[in-house]
Amino acid sequence: MLNKNVQTFIACDCEYDDAEIVLFGAGFDGTASFRPGTRFAPQTIRSESFGIETYSPYQDKDMTDMRFFDSGDPELPFGNTERVLDIIKERTKTILDDGKLPFMIGGEHLVTLGAVRAAAEKYKDLYILHFDAHADLREEYLGEKLSHACVLRRCHEIVGDGHIFQFGIRSGDREEFAFAREHTFMHKFDLDGLKDAAAALEGKNVYLTVDLDVLDPSVFPGTGTPEAGGVTFEELRQALTFCCGRLDIIGCDVNELSPPCDQSGVSTAAACKIIREMLIAL
Amino acid sequence: MLNKNVQTFIACDCEYDDAEIVLFGAGFDGTASFRPGTRFAPQTIRSESFGIETYSPYQDKDMTDMRFFDSGDPELPFGNTERVLDIIKERTKTILDDGKLPFMIGGEHLVTLGAVRAAAEKYKDLYILHFDAHADLREEYLGEKLSHACVLRRCHEIVGDGHIFQFGIRSGDREEFAFAREHTFMHKFDLDGLKDAAAALEGKNVYLTVDLDVLDPSVFPGTGTPEAGGVTFEELRQALTFCCGRLDIIGCDVNELSPPCDQSGVSTAAACKIIREMLIAL
Amino acid sequence: MLNKNVQTFIACDCEYDDAEIVLFGAGFDGTASFRPGTRFAPQTIRSESFGIETYSPYQDKDMTDMRFFDSGDPELPFGNTERVLDIIKERTKTILDDGKLPFMIGGEHLVTLGAVRAAAEKYKDLYILHFDAHADLREEYLGEKLSHACVLRRCHEIVGDGHIFQFGIRSGDREEFAFAREHTFMHKFDLDGLKDAAAALEGKNVYLTVDLDVLDPSVFPGTGTPEAGGVTFEELRQALTFCCGRLDIIGCDVNELSPPCDQSGVSTAAACKIIREMLIAL
Amino acid sequence: MLNKNVQTFIACDCEYDDAEIVLFGAGFDGTASFRPGTRFAPQTIRSESFGIETYSPYQDKDMTDMRFFDSGDPELPFGNTERVLDIIKERTKTILDDGKLPFMIGGEHLVTLGAVRAAAEKYKDLYILHFDAHADLREEYLGEKLSHACVLRRCHEIVGDGHIFQFGIRSGDREEFAFAREHTFMHKFDLDGLKDAAAALEGKNVYLTVDLDVLDPSVFPGTGTPEAGGVTFEELRQALTFCCGRLDIIGCDVNELSPPCDQSGVSTAAACKIIREMLIAL
Amino acid sequence: MLNKNVQTFIACDCEYDDAEIVLFGAGFDGTASFRPGTRFAPQTIRSESFGIETYSPYQDKDMTDMRFFDSGDPELPFGNTERVLDIIKERTKTILDDGKLPFMIGGEHLVTLGAVRAAAEKYKDLYILHFDAHADLREEYLGEKLSHACVLRRCHEIVGDGHIFQFGIRSGDREEFAFAREHTFMHKFDLDGLKDAAAALEGKNVYLTVDLDVLDPSVFPGTGTPEAGGVTFEELRQALTFCCGRLDIIGCDVNELSPPCDQSGVSTAAACKIIREMLIAL
Amino acid sequence: MLNKNVQTFIACDCEYDDAEIVLFGAGFDGTASFRPGTRFAPQTIRSESFGIETYSPYQDKDMTDMRFFDSGDPELPFGNTERVLDIIKERTKTILDDGKLPFMIGGEHLVTLGAVRAAAEKYKDLYILHFDAHADLREEYLGEKLSHACVLRRCHEIVGDGHIFQFGIRSGDREEFAFAREHTFMHKFDLDGLKDAAAALEGKNVYLTVDLDVLDPSVFPGTGTPEAGGVTFEELRQALTFCCGRLDIIGCDVNELSPPCDQSGVSTAAACKIIREMLIAL
Repeated sequence: MLNKNVQTFIACDCEYDDAEIVLFGAGFDGTASFRPGTRFAPQTIRSESFGIETYSPYQDKDMTDMRFFDSGDPELPFGNTERVLDIIKERTKTILDDGKLPFMIGGEHLVTLGAVRAAAEKYKDLYILHFDAHADLREEYLGEKLSHACVLRRCHEIVGDGHIFQFGIRSGDREEFAFAREHTFMHKFDLDGLKDAAAALEGKNVYLTVDLDVLDPSVFPGTGTPEAGGVTFEELRQALTFCCGRLDIIGCDVNELSPPCDQSGVSTAAACKIIREMLIAL
Repeated sequence: MLNKNVQTFIACDCEYDDAEIVLFGAGFDGTASFRPGTRFAPQTIRSESFGIETYSPYQDKDMTDMRFFDSGDPELPFGNTERVLDIIKERTKTILDDGKLPFMIGGEHLVTLGAVRAAAEKYKDLYILHFDAHADLREEYLGEKLSHACVLRRCHEIVGDGHIFQFGIRSGDREEFAFAREHTFMHKFDLDGLKDAAAALEGKNVYLTVDLDVLDPSVFPGTGTPEAGGVTFEELRQALTFCCGRLDIIGCDVNELSPPCDQSGVSTAAACKIIREMLIAL
Repeated sequence: MLNKNVQTFIACDCEYDDAEIVLFGAGFDGTASFRPGTRFAPQTIRSESFGIETYSPYQDKDMTDMRFFDSGDPELPFGNTERVLDIIKERTKTILDDGKLPFMIGGEHLVTLGAVRAAAEKYKDLYILHFDAHADLREEYLGEKLSHACVLRRCHEIVGDGHIFQFGIRSGDREEFAFAREHTFMHKFDLDGLKDAAAALEGKNVYLTVDLDVLDPSVFPGTGTPEAGGVTFEELRQALTFCCGRLDIIGCDVNELSPPCDQSGVSTAAACKIIREMLIAL
Repeated sequence: MLNKNVQTFIACDCEYDDAEIVLFGAGFDGTASFRPGTRFAPQTIRSESFGIETYSPYQDKDMTDMRFFDSGDPELPFGNTERVLDIIKERTKTILDDGKLPFMIGGEHLVTLGAVRAAAEKYKDLYILHFDAHADLREEYLGEKLSHACVLRRCHEIVGDGHIFQFGIRSGDREEFAFAREHTFMHKFDLDGLKDAAAALEGKNVYLTVDLDVLDPSVFPGTGTPEAGGVTFEELRQALTFCCGRLDIIGCDVNELSPPCDQSGVSTAAACKIIREMLIAL
Repeated sequence: MLNKNVQTFIACDCEYDDAEIVLFGAGFDGTASFRPGTRFAPQTIRSESFGIETYSPYQDKDMTDMRFFDSGDPELPFGNTERVLDIIKERTKTILDDGKLPFMIGGEHLVTLGAVRAAAEKYKDLYILHFDAHADLREEYLGEKLSHACVLRRCHEIVGDGHIFQFGIRSGDREEFAFAREHTFMHKFDLDGLKDAAAALEGKNVYLTVDLDVLDPSVFPGTGTPEAGGVTFEELRQALTFCCGRLDIIGCDVNELSPPCDQSGVSTAAACKIIREMLIAL
Repeated sequence: MLNKNVQTFIACDCEYDDAEIVLFGAGFDGTASFRPGTRFAPQTIRSESFGIETYSPYQDKDMTDMRFFDSGDPELPFGNTERVLDIIKERTKTILDDGKLPFMIGGEHLVTLGAVRAAAEKYKDLYILHFDAHADLREEYLGEKLSHACVLRRCHEIVGDGHIFQFGIRSGDREEFAFAREHTFMHKFDLDGLKDAAAALEGKNVYLTVDLDVLDPSVFPGTGTPEAGGVTFEELRQALTFCCGRLDIIGCDVNELSPPCDQSGVSTAAACKIIREMLIAL
C-alpha cells in the first residue's frame, strides 16, 4: 500500500529480463584535473529526467512503448582508478553477455575505457564513434596513462588504427592532432562528414561515446572544461538520432556532465533530452 | 524635497489616466510542480529594467515618447489558486474597461487564464496567439485542472476550436499533440508560418501570451523547465515586433521567467528587452 | 544480480510490517509567501543522509539495531492546499492505524495540520509540543486560513486551550503573542523551562512538531524566513533527545528546511543529524 | 484605484514632516578593495524587511506605533568619492536641520564620513560610538585617504582625541592599534565595558556607527572582509538596544552588509532585525 | 629546488626583454553603475587559462613558439578614477616605449582611456577599432565624464572624427546613436562590413578594444550589462583573427568580463580562448 | 621595473634558506567520497590571505617580523593515490632534512599520511595531535585502505598505540569509537582535557594535524562533510595557539577546507586566520 521511492531514469522501469537496453551510472571523476563534479551526473540526470516528457515530438515516439531498465550505479572506490575501470568493465560485460545494449551515464570520459574493454572482448572488430570537443589522445597526462585526457588513446591501443571516428574536436595539444592525422578519422570543429562516416561504419560493430562538451558551452555550460565554438543542440540531436537509427550500436555512453558547474539546470535538462532521443532511436 | 523609491518598469511612470498600456505583475507560481521561482519575476524585471535603455535601435523609437503605466502587483494569496485567478481577472477587467491595454508580467503560465477570462468577457470572438516550448494542453496535471501544464486547455474551453495559434512547441505528452491536431493551430519547434498565422488573425481580437521558455535555454536559462532546441532571441524579437505592430492585440502577457534559476541575470535582461520591444511596437 | 537505486533515509530500509517508526515526506511549500524551496527537503534529506553515520556517539546507539521504514512521498497536488492536507492526513492515519509512529519530513509547517488532524482523530486528548522561531498563531494570512503562518492556530482549534507548548518563539505579530498568553504555554527565545513542560506532559499523548528555524540561522541558514537569535544545535539536540526519550510521542515531524537557501549543505546535514538523534531516542 | 509599488523599509511610511527618524540609503562601495557588493544593501534590506515583523518581542513594542520615514537613496556617482561624500553630507544635514534623526543604511563604511561631517557641523562636541571588527584607523590605504579602511581616522581628524569609542575590534595593522592606544577608547574583541562607556557618554551628543561585521561571520557571513571571532547576535542586539535607549544618539548608520556575499539571505535578515530593534529603541 | 607559484597567463613566461607582446591586467571597476566584478577578471583569466591549450587548431600554431610576457597588475587605488587612469597610461607608455605591444586585460571599459592616452601620445594619427554591445558614447553618466558609459566619447576627444570604427553595437540612448552618425563609423548589431573597415584601416596605427559583451549573452553571460542579440563566438573569433593578422595593431585590450556574474566559468573560458587566438594572430 | 604576480600566503616571501617554517599546498581530494573541492584550498587560501592582516591582535605580534617561505604546490597526479602520497612525503622530507618545519595546506585529510610517513622516518618516537570532527579510524572505506576516512588508522600503524591524541571527535561508526578506546587517546565532542594532553606530550616530537571541520559548521561551512555541534573559532584558536607555543611541533597541516562548499568566503577567511595564528605561535 505504501510506495517506495525508486529513482530511475524516467520510463526505465521494466524488468531487467525484459529490457533491450540497460542503463547504468558511472559517476567517477577521479582523474579530473580541473573542476570535479561529473560524479553527480548519474544521480542528477535521473532526478531531473522527470522534468522532461517520455514522448519525443521529433521522432513521434514514446519511451513508454519501449523497454528500458536502469540498473543503478555500481559503487566505485574513488582513488583507485584501475579498480574503478574493472568494475565498469564487469557491469558492461554482464549486460552484453545477457544480449542487451549497455548505456552508461558518466562520469568523466575515462569511464569509457572500462566499457570499451568489455565491448572489445565480445566484438573482435570494434569501431568507436566519438563526439567531443577534446581529442583525448594524449599518451599521458601529469605522468598518468589513465586520465580523461588519454581515454581515446587508450581505446586506440585496443581497437587499432582507423577504427576511431572523431567529430567536433576543437581542442588538444599539437601532438594529439598529429596523432589523429596518422591513426584516427578526426573531423574538426563540427559534425560535417557524418554521413560519410556512417556509410563507412555501416554493418560494423560500433561503440558510441558522447562527450557532451561537444555542444557549445552556451547550450551546455555544465562541464569541467568548456570549449567555446561547439555545435548546437539541434545539430547534435539530429546527428545522434541519425547514428542510433542507422548504425549497429552495440554499446554507448554519455558523459562529462558536471551538475555543480551549471546551477541553472539547463545542462542537465539537455543531457536528459539527448539520452531520451538516443534511447528512442536505438 | 526628499525623493521616494518608486519601483516601476523603466519609463512606465506616466499617470494612469494618460496611459495607453498598463502593466501589472502576477508573480504566482503556486502550481509549479518542479522548481518554483517565477514569483520573483515581476519584482526582478522592474529592478533590472534600469540596466537596459529606453531607446530601441531596432525600431529607432524611445519609450519616453510613449505613455505606459506600471500599476504594481495585486497581492496574491499563495495556496488558493482559484482566488488568485479571480484577482488577476479583476485587475485585467479594470484595465480593459478603462479602454487600456493590459500587459501582465507573470508568474507561471497559469496566470494567463485569469487574464483570458477577463478578455473573453469583453471580446466575444477572442483569439489567442501563443509562444511556448510546451503545449500546455493537458486535461489535468497531478489530478488538478488548474495547473500551468493545462492553461491553454482551459483557455480552449473558453475560446473554442481554431482560436488558438501555437508556435515553437517542442514538448508535451502524446495526448497534447493529438489534441492540438484536432483543436488548435500548432506550429512545432520554430516560428515558421507566423506570417500566415498573422494573415489569418488580421482584424481579429488577439490575446498574446509569451512563455519565455520558447527561447532556447542558452539564451534564457532562467526558467523552471528549460527545453533545449528553442528559438534565438533575434527570432523571437522579430516575431513579436511583427505581431505587436500588425495585429490587434487587446491584451498580452510575458511569463515563466524564474530569476533564481539564472544567477547571471542574463534571462532577466532578455525578458526586459523583450518587454521593451513589445511595449514600443504595440 | 543488478541493483536498483532505492533512496530512503539512511538505515530506514526494514520491511514496513516490521517497522516501529515509519517516515514519509511531505514536500509541500504551496503557501510559502516569501521564498519557496521546502518542497525539496525530503528528497535532499534522504540523499544527504548518507553523508552522516548511523551511529550516534551522543547516545552510543546505532540506527542499524532498530527498525525504521521510509515509505516515500505521497504525490501532492501543488495549488490545491486542502487536498494536500487530506493526502497527508490519510498517510498519517494509515501509519497510526497500523500501530506505528508516523515521522513526517516537511515541507512548510502547514503540513503539520494534516498530521495533527489524523492524530487527533485517534487520540482524543492530544497535546502538541512545538519548537519554532515563529508563533504561527495568526487567524489568517493574506486572507487565507490555511497558511504556514496560521498552522498552530488551526491546531489550537483542534486540541484546545492549554494543549500546545511552544519553545524558542522569537517572532510574530503583537496579536499572536497576545493569543499565546491566553491559550498556549509559550516559552519565548530559548528552551528554558522544557523540564517543567515535560513533567506536565508526562503520560499524555504528545505530537511533536519541530520547525527547524528554531535553530539560530548561523547553524541553520537553509530556511525561508531565518530569525536571528535562535538556539544552538547542542541545545536543540539535547532537548529533542530528552523529549523523545521521556514523553509518549505518538507522532512527529521536522519541517521548514529549504535546501536552495543554503548551498553549503550545512543545514541539510544538521537536519539529517537531528532526525537521526530523534529516531534513535524515540 | 490601482496601487503603486513603493519600496520602503517596513513600517517606515509616515509623512516626512511627521517623522522623528528619517532613513536613507547610501549604497556606495567605490573604495572596497576586496569584494564589492555593499551597494546592493539598501535595496536588499528594504525588500527583505517585509520578511520580518514590525513587532519586537524583545522590547514588546511595535514599529507601527512610531513614526519613521524612508527617504530613499540619493543618487551617488560611482568613481567620484569626494562628490559621493558631499551628497551624503547634504542629505544628513537636511534631516538634521529639520530636527530629525538621520539613520543611514550603507554602503561601505566610508559613507559614515559624509554623515559625521554634517553632524559635526551641527554638534560642536560630537562623540562617536563605533562597533566594528576592524579598527579603520589607517592614515591611508593604497595611497588614498578616502578609503573604508581609513574612515575612523578621518573622523578622528574631525572629533579629536578621546571622542571615539570602539568596540569589538579584532583586526587591523600594528600601527592602527598603536594609534588607538593614544587617541581613542578601543575595546578589543568583544563588547565588555560598554556600560562604562555609556556612563562616560551620557549627556553627550553621540553619533552611532555600526559596521555589521562586528558580528561573528557565522551570524553575518554577508560582508566583504569577514573576521572570525566576533560577537553573537544577542550580544549586539542587547548592546544596541541599551545604547539607543540610554544615550543621546543624534544620528546613526548601519553598514557593510554585502548581499552578494551571502546567498542564503541570513545576513540581510539579521541586518533588518538590528535596524528594527534600533528604530524601536531610539 | 622548491618551486614558487608564479601566476601568469598560460605560456606568457618569457623574459620581458625578449617579449614582443606584454600583457598586464587592469582590474578596475570603480565606475560600474550596476553590477561590479570586472576587477576579478585579470586574476581569474590567468588562473583559468591553464584550462585551455596553448595550441590553436584554428590557426594551427602554438603559443609556445612565440614570446609573450605577462607583467602582472599595477596596483590601482579604487575610488580615485583619475589616478587609476594615470597608472594605466604609465604602464602602457612603458611598454610602447620599449617597442613592444601592450595587451591589457580589463577591468571595466573605462580602462581603455588610460591606454589610448598613452597610445595617442606615441602615434599621432591613431585609429580605434571597437567591438562592443554598447556605444559608450555618452557625454556624461550620473554627472561624471569618467565612466565606462562614456569611454569612447572620451577617446573621440583624443582621436577625432572618423577615427573610431564600432561593430556589434546594439544598445545606447538616442543621443549616442545620433552622435555616432556624425562622428564615428558605427556598424550596428553584427560584424558585417568588417572587411571594408579593414581595407580603410590598412596601414594605419590601430588600437583594438574588445568589450566582450559584444558576444551574445548565451556565449558570454559573465558581464555586468548583458545585451541579448549579440554575435556568436565563431563570428568574433574569426573577426579578431582577421583583424589581428591584417592590421597594424599597436595596442589592444579585452575587457568587461565579470567572473562573479557567471559561476559556470564558461565566460572566463571564452575570454581565455579569445585572448589566445589574438595573441597568436598578432 | 615590471612586477610579476607571485602568489604566496601573505607575508611568506622570505628566501627559502632563511625560512624557519616552509609552507606547501597539497590540494588532493581524490578519495573524497562525497563532495570534492578541497583541491582548491591551497590556491584559494593564498589568494584570500591578502584579505587578513599580518598582525595578530591576539598575540600582539606581526608575521612580518618572522621568516616564512611558501614553496608552492607540488603537482599531484589525480587518480593515482599512492603516487600522490609519495610526492607529499618527498616534499615533507626535503623540508625536514633542511632543518625547517613543514606546514602543509590540504587537501583532503589523507594527505596527512604522506607527511607523517616522512616525519616518522626522521623522528622515531613520533606523536600525533589530531583535531577533527571525524575519527578517521576505519580499517578501510569502500574497500580501499587509502581513504580520508582511514587516515588516522594508517597513521596508527606507523606510530602505534597511545601515540595519537584526538580532540573534538563527534562522528564515526561504532567500530571506530571502539578502536579508539583501545588504541588512541580520544576526547569526544570538545577540546576539554587539552591541558592534560599537552602535559603528556611535553618534550615529545609532535606532528599536529588540524581537520578544520572540527569547527562548528556555522563557523566553517566550507567542508565536504559538515558535522553540527562543533567547537567555536575562539576555542580552536586558543587551543592551537596554546599547543603551537607549548609543544615541540615538528610538522603540521591544516586541511579539509573545500572552497566551493562556501561561496561566502567565510570558511576560507577563518582558515587563513587559523594559519596566521599558528604560524606566529610556532
